[in-house]
Amino acid sequence: MSSEEGIKTKKAQDFGKWYLEVISKSDVVDERVPIKGSNILMPTGMEMWHAMMDRLDELLKGIGVQNYYFPLFIPEKLLKKEAAHFKGFVPEVAWVTHAGKTKLSERMAIRPTSEIIMYEMFKLWIRSYKDLPLKVNQYANIVRWDTKMTKPLIRDREFLWHETHSAHATEEEADKEVKVALGIYNKLVSGMLGLEYLELDRPEWDRFPGAEQSVALDAVMPDGKILQVGTVHNLGQKFSQAVGIRFVDKDGNKRLPYQLSYGIATRLIGAVVGIHGDDKGLIIPPAAAPVQIVIVPIYTNESKSKVMQKCGEILGRLEEKDFRVHLDAREQYTPGYKFHEWELKGVPVRIEIGPKDIEKGQVTLVRRDFLERIAVPEDKLEEQLLEVMDSIGFQLQKRAKELLKVSDAKDLKEIKNKAEDGGFIRVDFCMKESCAKKLKTQTQLSVRGNLFGKNEKAGKTCAVCGKAAKEKVYLAHAY
Amino acid sequence: MSSEEGIKTKKAQDFGKWYLEVISKSDVVDERVPIKGSNILMPTGMEMWHAMMDRLDELLKGIGVQNYYFPLFIPEKLLKKEAAHFKGFVPEVAWVTHAGKTKLSERMAIRPTSEIIMYEMFKLWIRSYKDLPLKVNQYANIVRWDTKMTKPLIRDREFLWHETHSAHATEEEADKEVKVALGIYNKLVSGMLGLEYLELDRPEWDRFPGAEQSVALDAVMPDGKILQVGTVHNLGQKFSQAVGIRFVDKDGNKRLPYQLSYGIATRLIGAVVGIHGDDKGLIIPPAAAPVQIVIVPIYTNESKSKVMQKCGEILGRLEEKDFRVHLDAREQYTPGYKFHEWELKGVPVRIEIGPKDIEKGQVTLVRRDFLERIAVPEDKLEEQLLEVMDSIGFQLQKRAKELLKVSDAKDLKEIKNKAEDGGFIRVDFCMKESCAKKLKTQTQLSVRGNLFGKNEKAGKTCAVCGKAAKEKVYLAHAY
Repeated sequence: MSSEEGIKTKKAQDFGKWYLEVISKSDVVDERVPIKGSNILMPTGMEMWHAMMDRLDELLKGIGVQNYYFPLFIPEKLLKKEAAHFKGFVPEVAWVTHAGKTKLSERMAIRPTSEIIMYEMFKLWIRSYKDLPLKVNQYANIVRWDTKMTKPLIRDREFLWHETHSAHATEEEADKEVKVALGIYNKLVSGMLGLEYLELDRPEWDRFPGAEQSVALDAVMPDGKILQVGTVHNLGQKFSQAVGIRFVDKDGNKRLPYQLSYGIATRLIGAVVGIHGDDKGLIIPPAAAPVQIVIVPIYTNESKSKVMQKCGEILGRLEEKDFRVHLDAREQYTPGYKFHEWELKGVPVRIEIGPKDIEKGQVTLVRRDFLERIAVPEDKLEEQLLEVMDSIGFQLQKRAKELLKVSDAKDLKEIKNKAEDGGFIRVDFCMKESCAKKLKTQTQLSVRGNLFGKNEKAGKTCAVCGKAAKEKVYLAHAY
Repeated sequence: MSSEEGIKTKKAQDFGKWYLEVISKSDVVDERVPIKGSNILMPTGMEMWHAMMDRLDELLKGIGVQNYYFPLFIPEKLLKKEAAHFKGFVPEVAWVTHAGKTKLSERMAIRPTSEIIMYEMFKLWIRSYKDLPLKVNQYANIVRWDTKMTKPLIRDREFLWHETHSAHATEEEADKEVKVALGIYNKLVSGMLGLEYLELDRPEWDRFPGAEQSVALDAVMPDGKILQVGTVHNLGQKFSQAVGIRFVDKDGNKRLPYQLSYGIATRLIGAVVGIHGDDKGLIIPPAAAPVQIVIVPIYTNESKSKVMQKCGEILGRLEEKDFRVHLDAREQYTPGYKFHEWELKGVPVRIEIGPKDIEKGQVTLVRRDFLERIAVPEDKLEEQLLEVMDSIGFQLQKRAKELLKVSDAKDLKEIKNKAEDGGFIRVDFCMKESCAKKLKTQTQLSVRGNLFGKNEKAGKTCAVCGKAAKEKVYLAHAY
């Protein structure tokens, strides 16, 4: 529906405008719905999401997570149970107050996240240490009535996500599970999608409301700004205390479990589009592409039947080898129109088959990243496709890695000089919120946290205030 | 978590009580969430739903349907666009009136269905006959604040569903698509799940608000009452007229497309549980079972390593053949406990492997429906499993068919005599709503409609009022 015209904006010149153009023309999102901060997820975006969640589901099941579905509504009284959590979310909560013509006796929050409603059930499900660990996942829609400027996929008032919640008998086990969760996200975000990011342990004032530790995956977008694409929260015993979850341990003592919650939202689609796309449109990494290969027949009236027969034969061969392949047999469009449309939608590989190809026993293969055309002998096709797809994945990840710049700065002057370069600036820092606020006012940079699990040693003085430094932290402009 | 005790209620004695017991003990639903009409979908229920939707997705893609996601919120003004539609849904709509501390300038409905919000976009997407047919699906949560008694999965205030919406250039094409949609539902509901139902064309007063025709899939539950498990609505041009969707046809004229909407909800899980289950718990048809085969090792300290090795070997062999198989290696539970748990959860086939089986080169196979134990030589296992699973599917469908009783009645006296028998009563009917109301008051039976596409001829007089009959219709007690 949107493929008749190409992307007009150059990515390098105006990333923001390019992004809005590409998500709409590549059939990822349609913004024209008459509800602010809501969008339509279009087929290309939707199928990318399904592919990501299928892979995630496999990974989560591998660590013993099971799927559930919890209610959209959370009664106000319940949401208030954990004070910091409530305070953090209440400014963004959408409230249901009426049903039909009746005013509800208690208003209901539309879930901005599901800790409280899930943990009300954990209280019933967890009785003994034998019930632990408990690992619960759901795929759901989330509403956060953000008052900031909305941006499709990156800041929506309604979005889709997965949220996994676990409860453990000991602190050690919970700490270990943080690493397990990060490992799963690495397989998804880096392994499948070819994105690069830092795992940053957020400073106290920037944690998930109610969490003791929030480790975020921070990727760098092509405009140099940081996009948080996932988070793992160590909740300690705060929620189990607030909600009243208790288990009997091996010695018969009642104890509070330690909890985790972690999630990834449709924002991740925005990162893939923004980081991998080019001036022709999307480029979807082969591992995540709903269609990996599109076959476009090229024929005259005379050669049509021969060409279509060969296309069908190649389609069958590739399907048998489990490639996700599509034959574009539409008669109302020219090959040129089709090339353009599939480039826009980011299909990693195109195969063109015409009468000359058939004569020579070859097909023409075009890779989406370099748009390079190569003739491949028919009998080498499967082999070449595997190589080309590997190579596309590798090239995309290489480009993504180049965006992830880290440079050091030792004082405010150096920070200011580097503030417009994009990526991360690494500094020694005092870890005072007041100092972070001062930095933000003067430079628009936020303190994104220290590198998780790496124990990077801080120098002596805070790069901002000059007082004693406590941690080495990463600064950046954030979305 | 819920498997320590078996089902106490006999299905044949008190179906309603049995149903509530089985859905909770078999890990399908947990009702104990503190929100009326909402439940937790538990892992067994959730995975059944995923399996059903995976199959449906395949079928829908086969007819050119694509996946989208539309907003949860529908502004009140929009919802009012189709008058009958609004009037039909407004008594059940949950309204969002506030976000954070701010009162919204226009209140937002939580979608009770998505016609209006989708068709606002159809208006933008459909310009020419080349854009037709347009076939759009979404998987979503739906809220209908039903004031009737709620019943888990059967009548929930929030439920999950798929809804497919299509737009066509001609009336003929739309009429044909009704049959295509019913064909897909037949492959899912009968082919995959082994349920039996009638396709009934609802009388005018019982159609989807705004539809010109509603064809429903009516299954019979073991208590003789009817459960509507899916519907296909022919919307004609009512919505395209109300919303203002127009396309330019081949001759350059502006015309209104003809539309369809059809959906199936998590209620279908309730039908599978209710119809196939027995006094031991669930029985999941093999085609829909997330786990088709569970392997339970039986060993003493001495034989443990030998038994576990054999179990691992069999697991690998069956996985290779694409059976969905699980090895229950938990050490804290006895084999008896495991048998009981997997029977409760409805896994179609259990394989027991002990030292004696190994000696004899066999395994013990237990089918869930008859709980019959047979020794199977190891080298015949795959072959036998295929046969047994086919046979379980066949037996379940046979039982379901027996519930689908239809008997004829020629007057009110006969109707009353048969009213308590369950299933359908077929009568000649005048098609007046007043007459249907009278029938309902006197017998609690509803007019469910006439058999779709069968043109059954009516006799001369209405079985209720004695005046001229127009149609042969099916009466039943409905959920």
